[in-house]
Amino acid sequence: MIVLLDQRRLPAEEVELVCTDVPALVDAIHTLAVRGAPLLGVAGAYGVALAAVRGFDVEEAAELLAHARPTAVNLAYGVGRVRDAYRAAARKGTGDGRAAAAALAEARAVHREDAEASARMAEHGVALLEELMPGGGYQILTHCNTGALVSGGQGTAFAVAGAVHAAGRLRRLWVDETRPLLQGARLTAYEAARAGMAYTLLTDNAAGSLFAAGEVDAVLVGADRIAADGSVANKVGSYPLAVLARYHHVPFVVVAPSTTVDPGTEGGAEIDVEQRPGHEVTEIPVPPQSTGGGTGTGVPVAPLGAQAYNPAFDITPPELVTAIVTENGVVSPVTKAGLAELCDRSRSGNGMMSI
Amino acid sequence: MIVLLDQRRLPAEEVELVCTDVPALVDAIHTLAVRGAPLLGVAGAYGVALAAVRGFDVEEAAELLAHARPTAVNLAYGVGRVRDAYRAAARKGTGDGRAAAAALAEARAVHREDAEASARMAEHGVALLEELMPGGGYQILTHCNTGALVSGGQGTAFAVAGAVHAAGRLRRLWVDETRPLLQGARLTAYEAARAGMAYTLLTDNAAGSLFAAGEVDAVLVGADRIAADGSVANKVGSYPLAVLARYHHVPFVVVAPSTTVDPGTEGGAEIDVEQRPGHEVTEIPVPPQSTGGGTGTGVPVAPLGAQAYNPAFDITPPELVTAIVTENGVVSPVTKAGLAELCDRSRSGNGMMSI
Repeated sequence: MIVLLDQRRLPAEEVELVCTDVPALVDAIHTLAVRGAPLLGVAGAYGVALAAVRGFDVEEAAELLAHARPTAVNLAYGVGRVRDAYRAAARKGTGDGRAAAAALAEARAVHREDAEASARMAEHGVALLEELMPGGGYQILTHCNTGALVSGGQGTAFAVAGAVHAAGRLRRLWVDETRPLLQGARLTAYEAARAGMAYTLLTDNAAGSLFAAGEVDAVLVGADRIAADGSVANKVGSYPLAVLARYHHVPFVVVAPSTTVDPGTEGGAEIDVEQRPGHEVTEIPVPPQSTGGGTGTGVPVAPLGAQAYNPAFDITPPELVTAIVTENGVVSPVTKAGLAELCDRSRSGNGMMSI
Repeated sequence: MIVLLDQRRLPAEEVELVCTDVPALVDAIHTLAVRGAPLLGVAGAYGVALAAVRGFDVEEAAELLAHARPTAVNLAYGVGRVRDAYRAAARKGTGDGRAAAAALAEARAVHREDAEASARMAEHGVALLEELMPGGGYQILTHCNTGALVSGGQGTAFAVAGAVHAAGRLRRLWVDETRPLLQGARLTAYEAARAGMAYTLLTDNAAGSLFAAGEVDAVLVGADRIAADGSVANKVGSYPLAVLARYHHVPFVVVAPSTTVDPGTEGGAEIDVEQRPGHEVTEIPVPPQSTGGGTGTGVPVAPLGAQAYNPAFDITPPELVTAIVTENGVVSPVTKAGLAELCDRSRSGNGMMSI
């Protein structure tokens, strides 16, 4: 079985959600009990291993899991790695037990590598900020949730903020609440409070005044998919921040493991953006949410029958991204060639590209 | 007594709120039971008249009302007009009854003029859109609530959208939900539904994707105060829309009665932006809200003790405003001289400035 921290119930309650089969895990992914790009990769990996260990149909499980959310490329990556390991072991004809063990070992490797990638992204991110803005005392704005809750390690953008904080260089973390599902208010604020950071929550609308007042030194966000040209799909609301950052000459930095880069997606126009149900906008989720999820159990705030536009993500073109920080180093400016080189680089490499 | 539609309880319930004295009205203004720039002017005017008619201290009432919300200049304008009418009548020594009658007559005049201004803004706004984008079929994005609920007439920006709709030229009204208090979801969607408009609700975060997809032809917003240089204080989240609009070469149009222009405020830096309680961000108001208000009766969504930044307004500099539409005509480009000329113009004038 797979035991997850049910993120829908945070920060009010810390509740474990137990998935004993793949459909339960797919449901947990659909309803965002488990979410966040890198963690989806780890969850998908363990999901395939679970199918292998329990004797379910591994190919069917992999298919279901890989498509549980269309935009998150890490999910397909984690699923693919474990499925391939299972296939390879199965081809050797060493028996189902050995193939299942190989699948589980591969899932654990995906998990471990994710934690290692997180630590390396934090190092590279801190070095990048120091290079962009020597001296520290940063006011960093972040969007959605990118911390330990989304990762086998300390996360992506939040891991960088955490490392800045650990180095005594964080003046303030500005936390966008991140409508509609309030991952900033519910999850990032929870992680910032636990880490003892100086943080302030704001509505997504209020970021503009902060930029105008010169109170934002850098924007740090994660990514759900990065196209070959450097276009970044991330939580809806990231693109407006990138436009504001450009208008105010503030660095807009994307932090994501290299597995988030999808060489098979040419540019932003080819990224499939998940459209989520309108009730996430027309009803306010009142935590703790029912674990049923997805059927609109919140309190209505709009007139009955109101139609809503609810994309889960938006696309930021590479020209608005100051830098992409991965475990392999930093690409800045963001170019197709630079990104390809970074992704090809051996994982043992630790260098930064010239900025 | 003054009878108000309690806007906190919309759209779930249409409840009248009765104010029999000035402190009750001030409380209704503080807690946003009555809100919206032009309506605040009308409410303030009737508040002073109420004090005069009931024999309360008119000067004290005017003082209390004028400062109930610091940013909304219309409030001080409506209060000032009725107080001045009362003072003038009182100076003539014709007795308290006559002075009170003069105050009430002046409040009714403020109300009537506001309704007339609304109709004229709608005409000018439609003409402006036709000039900027001949042909119609507009997709208009709006923020907060600026309709009949905020006005003695049909409102400001929403009145323009309504006139476009009435002329068969509205393709879609995009309605920002407008966190933290969801005036878009609760009030604008309610008014759009009642008017039979094709409208779609979205989180404030989702506006960026709409611009990027070319789905926004114009942004129409109201204003709470316009400085002499054309800087516009409006609901928080307006400034990010102005930056997005500029980046995407989309007109950003402010619709407000000329009484919103405050010649005594030189520029945006001098505008006092109201900071509202953090619980509006850290707790989700679950409608119908208690009429007690202001003490945080919502459902917590952030960790206990989370600090929040919650400005009610932001400032859009004149260089990002394509046009300001008033009852006296349109100023575009927005300049100090153009704005002053428009405000000085006799109310009988109906001309448009060159665009």
